[in-house]
Amino acid sequence: MTQATQQTVYDDNNIFAKMLNGDIPYHKVYEDDKTLAFMDIMPQAKGHVLVIPKQKAIDLAGLEPEYAAAVLMTCKKVMRAQRQVFEREGIIQMQLNGAQAGQTVFHYHVHLIPSSIHELGRHAVTQVESNQLADMAKKLATAIES
Amino acid sequence: MTQATQQTVYDDNNIFAKMLNGDIPYHKVYEDDKTLAFMDIMPQAKGHVLVIPKQKAIDLAGLEPEYAAAVLMTCKKVMRAQRQVFEREGIIQMQLNGAQAGQTVFHYHVHLIPSSIHELGRHAVTQVESNQLADMAKKLATAIES
Repeated sequence: MTQATQQTVYDDNNIFAKMLNGDIPYHKVYEDDKTLAFMDIMPQAKGHVLVIPKQKAIDLAGLEPEYAAAVLMTCKKVMRAQRQVFEREGIIQMQLNGAQAGQTVFHYHVHLIPSSIHELGRHAVTQVESNQLADMAKKLATAIES
Repeated sequence: MTQATQQTVYDDNNIFAKMLNGDIPYHKVYEDDKTLAFMDIMPQAKGHVLVIPKQKAIDLAGLEPEYAAAVLMTCKKVMRAQRQVFEREGIIQMQLNGAQAGQTVFHYHVHLIPSSIHELGRHAVTQVESNQLADMAKKLATAIES
């Protein structure tokens, strides 16, 4: 497992910045004026979603209050949709601060993982087929809207 | 590892409710009108802090927006203090929703753990001496105030 180098200045070319700029595609679950939620392409469990603020924050230390509130409210919407779509109660919410903690993309992001803390990390790190992710994103988006 | 039973109605006798009521002692790190932060007595790593809202929410699904914002801003304060006091960059922020995810106390709570996702769970689950926790709580509180 390689460790990313700690970032102290926000990198405008990080993968989430590129997604927010529309430069690379993703499977959208939800979007509002302050946040974006999408499927993790290297899920730690089926239905793993990431929520990011539309603010250039490396981690929690740089997150502004209005974006913090918006991120958590989007997490709430997504978590409720995950419970409904995947028919399970248990959802882990996790957010890594610093390369030393395991953060690899230096744009603040919250993991919402339908899993158990006792199982987390046992999953193989494998990329999921795009059409499967698209299908899950659609189901979650529909659950959020309903 | 025993699994707690899922709660669907808030239990006024849960351990965090008792702490908020002043019925049981704890090592306070920070408090404001909407949140409380204290040392975890069964830490997953040295300096493990818990942040809770002063709202009777079982998990993220029931958390009100104003408390969500307050919790995350308290987490930000505590995380900065942890980085300073424990001289490390890596802080895991984690919050478990549902017994199935590993939640054992059914009052919404955020874990702030000075650790790495690659190490989490390897730690023995042992209770830490009260005087050690009191010392860490004092150092963190001082770092937050400064």
